[in-house]
Amino acid sequence: MGDINERPPEPNIMAPGHSDVDVLIIGAGPAGLMAATWMARCGIKTRIVDKRGTKIFSGQADGLQCRTLEIFDSFGFADRVWKESNHMLEICLWNPDTAGRIKRSDRIPDTIPNISRFQQVVLHQGRIERFFLDSLKKYSDIEVERGVLPESLKFDESKSDDPDAYPIEVALRHLTHKEASPEQSNATNGAAGSDGLFRSNMSADDTQELLNTAATNGKAGLREIVRAKYMIGCDGAHSWTRKQLGYKLEGEQTDYIWGVLDIIPITDFPDIRMRCAIHSASCGSVMVIPRENKLVRLYIQMTTTENGGGKLDRRTITPQMILESAQRTMAPYKLTYKYCDWWTAYQIGQRVGSDFSKNERIFLAGDAVHTHSPKAGQGMNVSMQDTFNLGWKIAAVVNGTASRSILKTYQSERRRIAQDLIAFDHKFSRLFSGRPAKDVMDEAGISMEEFKDAFVKGNLFASGVAVDYGASVIVAKEGDAQEQGDGSDVGIETGKGVVSKQALATNVKVGMRMPSFQVLNQADARPWQFQQMLKSDGRWRIVVFAGDVSDAKQMERVANLGKALDGPGSFIRRFTPAGKKIDSLFDILTIHCAKRTETELHNFPDIFHPFDEREGWDYWKVFVDDESYHEGFGNAYKQYGVGKKEGCTMVLRPDQYVAWIGDMEDVSSMDRYFSAFMVAKA
Amino acid sequence: MGDINERPPEPNIMAPGHSDVDVLIIGAGPAGLMAATWMARCGIKTRIVDKRGTKIFSGQADGLQCRTLEIFDSFGFADRVWKESNHMLEICLWNPDTAGRIKRSDRIPDTIPNISRFQQVVLHQGRIERFFLDSLKKYSDIEVERGVLPESLKFDESKSDDPDAYPIEVALRHLTHKEASPEQSNATNGAAGSDGLFRSNMSADDTQELLNTAATNGKAGLREIVRAKYMIGCDGAHSWTRKQLGYKLEGEQTDYIWGVLDIIPITDFPDIRMRCAIHSASCGSVMVIPRENKLVRLYIQMTTTENGGGKLDRRTITPQMILESAQRTMAPYKLTYKYCDWWTAYQIGQRVGSDFSKNERIFLAGDAVHTHSPKAGQGMNVSMQDTFNLGWKIAAVVNGTASRSILKTYQSERRRIAQDLIAFDHKFSRLFSGRPAKDVMDEAGISMEEFKDAFVKGNLFASGVAVDYGASVIVAKEGDAQEQGDGSDVGIETGKGVVSKQALATNVKVGMRMPSFQVLNQADARPWQFQQMLKSDGRWRIVVFAGDVSDAKQMERVANLGKALDGPGSFIRRFTPAGKKIDSLFDILTIHCAKRTETELHNFPDIFHPFDEREGWDYWKVFVDDESYHEGFGNAYKQYGVGKKEGCTMVLRPDQYVAWIGDMEDVSSMDRYFSAFMVAKA
Repeated sequence: MGDINERPPEPNIMAPGHSDVDVLIIGAGPAGLMAATWMARCGIKTRIVDKRGTKIFSGQADGLQCRTLEIFDSFGFADRVWKESNHMLEICLWNPDTAGRIKRSDRIPDTIPNISRFQQVVLHQGRIERFFLDSLKKYSDIEVERGVLPESLKFDESKSDDPDAYPIEVALRHLTHKEASPEQSNATNGAAGSDGLFRSNMSADDTQELLNTAATNGKAGLREIVRAKYMIGCDGAHSWTRKQLGYKLEGEQTDYIWGVLDIIPITDFPDIRMRCAIHSASCGSVMVIPRENKLVRLYIQMTTTENGGGKLDRRTITPQMILESAQRTMAPYKLTYKYCDWWTAYQIGQRVGSDFSKNERIFLAGDAVHTHSPKAGQGMNVSMQDTFNLGWKIAAVVNGTASRSILKTYQSERRRIAQDLIAFDHKFSRLFSGRPAKDVMDEAGISMEEFKDAFVKGNLFASGVAVDYGASVIVAKEGDAQEQGDGSDVGIETGKGVVSKQALATNVKVGMRMPSFQVLNQADARPWQFQQMLKSDGRWRIVVFAGDVSDAKQMERVANLGKALDGPGSFIRRFTPAGKKIDSLFDILTIHCAKRTETELHNFPDIFHPFDEREGWDYWKVFVDDESYHEGFGNAYKQYGVGKKEGCTMVLRPDQYVAWIGDMEDVSSMDRYFSAFMVAKA
Repeated sequence: MGDINERPPEPNIMAPGHSDVDVLIIGAGPAGLMAATWMARCGIKTRIVDKRGTKIFSGQADGLQCRTLEIFDSFGFADRVWKESNHMLEICLWNPDTAGRIKRSDRIPDTIPNISRFQQVVLHQGRIERFFLDSLKKYSDIEVERGVLPESLKFDESKSDDPDAYPIEVALRHLTHKEASPEQSNATNGAAGSDGLFRSNMSADDTQELLNTAATNGKAGLREIVRAKYMIGCDGAHSWTRKQLGYKLEGEQTDYIWGVLDIIPITDFPDIRMRCAIHSASCGSVMVIPRENKLVRLYIQMTTTENGGGKLDRRTITPQMILESAQRTMAPYKLTYKYCDWWTAYQIGQRVGSDFSKNERIFLAGDAVHTHSPKAGQGMNVSMQDTFNLGWKIAAVVNGTASRSILKTYQSERRRIAQDLIAFDHKFSRLFSGRPAKDVMDEAGISMEEFKDAFVKGNLFASGVAVDYGASVIVAKEGDAQEQGDGSDVGIETGKGVVSKQALATNVKVGMRMPSFQVLNQADARPWQFQQMLKSDGRWRIVVFAGDVSDAKQMERVANLGKALDGPGSFIRRFTPAGKKIDSLFDILTIHCAKRTETELHNFPDIFHPFDEREGWDYWKVFVDDESYHEGFGNAYKQYGVGKKEGCTMVLRPDQYVAWIGDMEDVSSMDRYFSAFMVAKA
């Protein structure tokens, strides 16, 4: 489908006046919805528009990394994904045996054990979008405006540095229903038994959505001007926003063509409900991705230019051709289907955007700045994680709690990830598309040992938990900031930043997300994964590993820390907006490791469990690393690598990334960390 | 509030004709909704009416046993309860020390470890009703009709035994809005800071509910006649249905008066987020039940006739009086509040209905047949479990798969439970309301040792998992059926029923619910709690503990079992309705204990993973007791007490209760079990 905005604009009616918003989001796919979700939680005035008239139905990316589930959980809806999705536990590698017949050669756990409390799952993108929409509705009045097309962009660069300015002006056109319905490719394209090419797998809770669409259509034909402080282009690989900025995607096109079938398979292949990588001796490769609702997705290699065959035209491919290709690869096992949910064929390169932002006012995210093959299940994840990284930063600046300096870290952090992703995908695609080597002398073939190695290593990358952000004004770690990022300037000179004491928490890495282990609430003995306390609500967390507080000396250190944090000149008092609760910007969470039953909540400093006139003491901030009644022992101190005697303190960013680590006495270092980018209240 | 039906009926319009339903449910509280939920899952034509115009808002019973959560999970919504509820982990006992000052004397786990995969939680009844309503909507077109009052009942006893007859005729009146709104007791009754006596704690998803109420009101004033095959009276302690039948509640009234406050407490009492039983030396008792949304419920003893004080009139009690009573008990700790969600005072006896059914056509359930104190958190649970027991039985008879003989087991099973509950509550209330003994010589006082003992024992009873149904046509166990039930006849002579081999599964007790342990799906390696496979969909389960199938001899036994079950004369073929799938009435679930990676699904008999023309093989019926990648090892064979070499087979009722246990060769015994009550298809 061509870009809809390439049509000549029709002579429509211009809506009078203009409206001002803090943030304008172009595109309501997963990346756009993630951005909007942050804005909803942080109370930012936001509009989000999408040129499509309806949500996604069938097909589309659907692998979810364990890190993505952690993020969903921080917004409160990972449980819905966990319940509806198919869980992938094991990867089976199938390779030709000496007789050239495919055989199961290896089993690998799909998610590396112990890296996350979640495992990789598969669920249709439409359901993910539904969960975002429900969340938006619950926490804000932000509604996706569908069938709305951006037509022109004006940007006043001179106003970039004025935090209160609206340097962005976008003309929006409200499409008619006909304009907003994308052309659907020919559903009867030779499909053997295909009966659901664009069948919806959405459930009944979409009714409201459809009603909204209808209501929106009341504006059909209208044009309006929107002024915005910030804008985020999440408008896909053919990004209109990117084109307006004149930015390029850099990289290469590939010649590999892959077919995709979403079917309910009828087969005697024993591992059809496992994730499989099947390399046949000379009939190409198939990847099996078991999905929800009995579906299985098959990625099927159609041809490569390498093997000397004539180049295949992607547009001539039919589901029957794809199926036959799969049947050849998977022989002697039989494969057929009665129900096909969706199919496609694609040919894709690995490309990265040259720039991720314009003056830290207009940002690009998701497919607008990186494209790659879908087989590693990374696309939707990395795209959502782009705006998960960006959203809270914009919100903090708009809300006046942080200076604009933090916005530079979006490109340094996320463009680096995109570069790593593309390198990973390039290697992985090549190994997966190649013909297996017959023996060690077969240099044109792909070594299956090398493939397995890549798969195992790729698994960690693909989990999303290996992300390690470089030094910057908001990541207090050692090393060269530009080298650790994408090369762009992030406003700190090497060796001049605040430094962390990484050795105090050997398994909590500055720059990486806070791992999760079980702790118990001191007040009610309930076990929690600690990450469940790290909600995405825009707050910074001070985590106090209070150590063994049954030791009077240690409790004195804790008391002194409480005094310092509670003092009139503390950064908490300086930066927390006047009239707001003491924990509205900095949320102090304590984990001690004395015996729960020999410790009382009220012995901890007040600021660790603040008092509220209406609600009394706060019972949900002090935790203990102790045995639970029903869920075993989390062993959190050991797992985090924190000493039980001395403990330590940490700062976590609003997105759960570890920003700083220090001793209980290092309040002044913590203060310097925050003072570098926070805005003191009048 | 008096019974609304005691008002003289107004001269309203009679709706023309009458409508026939299979099941008419009177009352849409938890018991009625549970009954309706079964009907929804089993496709039974049902109406459910309630005289109240709206759902419950604040207050009301809200403790949920772990067994109740298991049941909710079988319907698919335990996760919503688990997420929103407050989890109770520990019970703290507070008693006077030698100086008469209250002190924490003991800690007990609230739910006994390892009896269930859930723990006891607390959530407002209105939310529970919401989850039922959402579930009804998802699976059926059954809608609660509110503001609908039954006015007369005609029952033609002579038609009782005819399965196709409609012996019940009920006149319903659709109330006007004014009639349907219950009088709310005076909210400003001296409430110190009470600002929410009838505040809703329902979330926005009630909108549709309110719209429905409005729509229903279109019928306001209409009368209609409904004919029904079966009727279930879930209409509470003042049950209209019970009165029509002339049945009595038998038991005694008590003189204990208790006040209840639902508040956000402001207190320095350290265990305010624990469940506490506080006995003061001479100022009465308080029970603390921590709830969701920062609320705490306090049950506060107001007076007893025992202590010689003047008898208190329940109607004169104010929240301020209740609070002051609590303050006296909990001194020297301070207690006050700014926010009160709800309060009440009650005085209640322990009573059980004389009969639970009229000719097994009209049934009574819930508060209509048992009343007792709310402090043990049993009321809502036992009520829902009544109709959880009854619902599938009526559905099976209406659907023509079972004979009416199974309906007698409702009274024998549930009236016995009600009797046990009343005995438990009687003892518990007495111990809780009494004054603590000063020393062993103080015979008028309650021994705190005895109290703790009762608490610990009561805990198992209160979990709901100790329920053990007696021998009957649907429970193949030894012993005297009448002795094991409530004394009523359940249609089998002692020693004449089918017998189980209990020794084959020492921890799976015939008559009790199937316990749950982790197993892995053979086809995709995903870990599941086995109970998650036991959905409440009306199907019977044949559980095959296939043993170590890597042993060829054992696999031969399994193959023979498959052949017997699949044979043309097998009970599965005889009783499964013609034209229905082979697993539509009997769902065969297999658990083997060979190594997963050395076993292939396709080696098991076809009927263990049946083939479907559209969906291929079934990958969700064969499980293995093996180590998982991320969730440890369930050790299911050991936990169930089943031998790994020999295995065994079991029959589970549609409500998860164990019905029969035998060897793999005992298919004829299994056949006799089913033949005693199942209806062969023409």
